[in-house]
Amino acid sequence: MRRPDQQTTTRPTPDAAPGTPPDAPPAEATGVGAHPPEPGTQGLAEATGPGAQRLADATGPRTRSLADATGAARPPDPTGSRPTGDLTTEAVLAPYLRGQAAEFLRSLRLHHEHSAPAESGGRDAAAATRALRRSARRISGCLHTFRAALDPLWADQLRAELAWLSGILAREHAYAGRLTRLVEALHQLSGPALPAARGVRAAGDSAASDLQGRAALGVGAARAGALLERRLTLARTRSHSAALQALGSSRFHAVADAVALLASDVPLAPGPAGRTAEALMEPAEHAEQRLLTAVAALPPDDTEPYNEAQDAAWHQTRLLLRLHRYAHEVVLGAADPALTGAGHALDLHRDAVEAAGAAAAAARTPRIAPATAYALGVLHADQRHEVEAARAVFRETWPYAAALSTP
Amino acid sequence: MRRPDQQTTTRPTPDAAPGTPPDAPPAEATGVGAHPPEPGTQGLAEATGPGAQRLADATGPRTRSLADATGAARPPDPTGSRPTGDLTTEAVLAPYLRGQAAEFLRSLRLHHEHSAPAESGGRDAAAATRALRRSARRISGCLHTFRAALDPLWADQLRAELAWLSGILAREHAYAGRLTRLVEALHQLSGPALPAARGVRAAGDSAASDLQGRAALGVGAARAGALLERRLTLARTRSHSAALQALGSSRFHAVADAVALLASDVPLAPGPAGRTAEALMEPAEHAEQRLLTAVAALPPDDTEPYNEAQDAAWHQTRLLLRLHRYAHEVVLGAADPALTGAGHALDLHRDAVEAAGAAAAAARTPRIAPATAYALGVLHADQRHEVEAARAVFRETWPYAAALSTP
Repeated sequence: MRRPDQQTTTRPTPDAAPGTPPDAPPAEATGVGAHPPEPGTQGLAEATGPGAQRLADATGPRTRSLADATGAARPPDPTGSRPTGDLTTEAVLAPYLRGQAAEFLRSLRLHHEHSAPAESGGRDAAAATRALRRSARRISGCLHTFRAALDPLWADQLRAELAWLSGILAREHAYAGRLTRLVEALHQLSGPALPAARGVRAAGDSAASDLQGRAALGVGAARAGALLERRLTLARTRSHSAALQALGSSRFHAVADAVALLASDVPLAPGPAGRTAEALMEPAEHAEQRLLTAVAALPPDDTEPYNEAQDAAWHQTRLLLRLHRYAHEVVLGAADPALTGAGHALDLHRDAVEAAGAAAAAARTPRIAPATAYALGVLHADQRHEVEAARAVFRETWPYAAALSTP
Repeated sequence: MRRPDQQTTTRPTPDAAPGTPPDAPPAEATGVGAHPPEPGTQGLAEATGPGAQRLADATGPRTRSLADATGAARPPDPTGSRPTGDLTTEAVLAPYLRGQAAEFLRSLRLHHEHSAPAESGGRDAAAATRALRRSARRISGCLHTFRAALDPLWADQLRAELAWLSGILAREHAYAGRLTRLVEALHQLSGPALPAARGVRAAGDSAASDLQGRAALGVGAARAGALLERRLTLARTRSHSAALQALGSSRFHAVADAVALLASDVPLAPGPAGRTAEALMEPAEHAEQRLLTAVAALPPDDTEPYNEAQDAAWHQTRLLLRLHRYAHEVVLGAADPALTGAGHALDLHRDAVEAAGAAAAAARTPRIAPATAYALGVLHADQRHEVEAARAVFRETWPYAAALSTP
C-alpha cells in the first residue's frame, strides 16, 4: 500500500548506490523498450522543420501537456533527510546523458555497417535500430523530465528531433509485430481446434452447424490472414524505406551531430541553481507524481471491451510510466523493478489496441468477401478483449493499491 | 469443501421437513426453469410415434446415456442413520408427481383460455406455456431419476412424450430470447459509445481511424441486427405455429390424458421393494453423484473462447444439475439453494453458446455485405467470450471446490 503523499520511490535511500553512471541500464530485459513512441510525438517534431537547431518554441502542445497534465502538488518530504550521495546534475545527469549519447553513436555505427548492400545481416541492422531507438528514448525522456536542469531551449529542440527519429524508426518494427500478433490470433481461432471439435461433439443439428461455422471461419480466416499480410507487409516495406531515407537525410545528420556534441558536453542550465541535488530530485518526483495521478484517474473497470474512448488515457499512462522509469534510472541507477509488470501490461495494451485497429481497418477494404469480413470481425473483438485483459493485468500488477482504487 | 465420498446433500437431515407435497416449489424464482430442453431429447421422443402409450422400449440412446454416463460408485452411507420422516415413494414421490400433474393440467386450461382468437392475452398464453413446460420438466425428471420406484415402462414412455412436448414448446421462447440477447449485444458495441469516443479522443490518425471503424461497425451492426431479426423472427413464428399444431394433435391429447391419470393415480413399481425409503434415497443420491462426476470431468479452464468442442460437456452438466435439482425438490421439498448460482451460470452458458451459433449461422447468409459479416463476426466472438465468462462464473459459484479441482 502506498499513498501519493508517502515518500517517493524515486528519492534514493541512503544505502542505495548514488549516481553510478548507468552505461548499461537493465531495463530493456523486460521487453518494454522495443516499442515505438506514439504517432503524436512525431507530428510535433516535424513542426520544427528539418535541420533546425536550437529553435525557440519548438515544443508543441503535446510536449506541454505532459508537463501541465496534473495539477497535483508534489509530496512534501516527510523525513527532511537529504540524499547522502552526490546527486547534483553534474555528478549524475550529465554522465547518464553522455553514456546514452555514446550508446546512440555506437548503435548508429553498427547500423551503417550492417546496412551495406553486400551485408546479409538484416537482423543485425534491426538490432542496431532497436538500440538506436532505445538510447534516443532515454535521452529524450531525460531532456523532458530534467528540462529545468539543462539548457531548456536546447533540450526542447533536441527532444523534438529525437521524437521524430524514434517515430520513423519504430514503425517498421511495429508493423512486423502487429502482423505476427494478428496471424497468431487467426491461427488460434481457426486452425488446430477443428479436429477436436469433430471428434468430441455429439452428432446433431447444432454440432453440424458449429462445424460448418468453424469451416466457414477457417476459409475466412485464411483470406483475412492473406489480406492482413498484404496490407501490413506493404506498410512495413514503406516504413523501411522511410527509415532508410530518414537516416540519410540532412535532418538526421543534424540530430547525430547534436548527439555527438552531447556525448562530450552536456549543456546544463546557467547559474548555480540548476546544479543542486534538488534540481534532480524535484523533477524525478514530479515525473512519479504525474504517473500516480494519471493512474488514479484511469477509468474504472467496466468490462466492456468496446471502450476505445478510454484507450488514450491508457496510452498516456504508458508514456508517463516510461518517463518515470528513465528518471528512476538516472537517480537510482536502475528502473524500479516493482513497475516492470505494470509497464509490460501497458505495452500489451498498446499492441492489442493497435492490432484491433488494424483488423477493423482491413475490414474496410472494398470488395472483400463476407467470410473475410466476418473473420476480421472475430479478430477485432478478440483483440479488444485482449485490451480489456491487459487493463486487468495492469490493475493486478500495479503495486500501489491506494492510488488505483481512487475513483 | 465437499468430497464425493461425503454425505450427500440430498439425504435429509432429521430436522428437515420430510416429504411435504411441493405444490409450489420455489425453484422457478431463479429463472432457470424458463429454458427449453436440448434438441436431442425431442428426437428420441418422436421415435415412439404419436399417441402410443406404454410402448415398450420407448427409451432412446440419450435417455440411457443419462443413466449410464457415469460408472462412479454411489457413496457409502457413512452415518448409517435412516431419515426420521416417512420417505417412502407413496408418502413423498407420489404426492409430488400428483401435484405437478395437477399443475400441468391447470396450465393447460389457462393456455386454452388465453389462446382463444378473441383473447388479447398473448402474454398470458406465454406464461401458461412456461408453466406447462415447468411441470413437464419436473414430471419428466422424476420419471427419469425415480424410474426404479415406478412402473418403468410407463415412466419411459411418458417421459419421452413429455420431452417431445417440452422441446416443441420451448423453441418459440428460445428464439425470442436469443434475438433479444443478440440485439442488446449489438447495441452495446455500436450505439451509445460513439459520442463519448468523439469527445474524449485526441485528434489524430488513429483516433480518426477508430471513429471510422466505429461508424463502419455501426452501419454493419444495424444491418446485422436487421438480418438477425428477420431470421430469428421467422424461426420464432414457425415455432409458434408448430407449438399450436402440437397442442391440437392427437399425440398431445394422449400425453394430456396420461398426465390426467397421473394426477389421481401414480403407477408405482410392483411389489414392496419399490416402496421403502431407499427406493427414493438411492436414486436421488445417484443423480447427485452423476452431477458431481460430470463437474469433476469438465475440461480445465484454458481461457480460449473458440472451444466449441467443450460445449457438449457443459450442456450435459446443465441437464444433470437440473435432474439433481428436481430430485432434491422431491426428497427435501425444495431445490438446493447452494446450486442456484451454478445453475444460473449454466443457463447463461447455454444461451451464449446458442447466440454465438446464431450469429455464425447468420453470417453464412448468401450475398450479405462485408460490413454485416464483420459485425456478425464481432458478435460471434463476443458471445464466445460470454461462454467463457459463464464457465468462469460456474467455477466460482460451484460450492464443492474439491470436485472441481479434480483434473
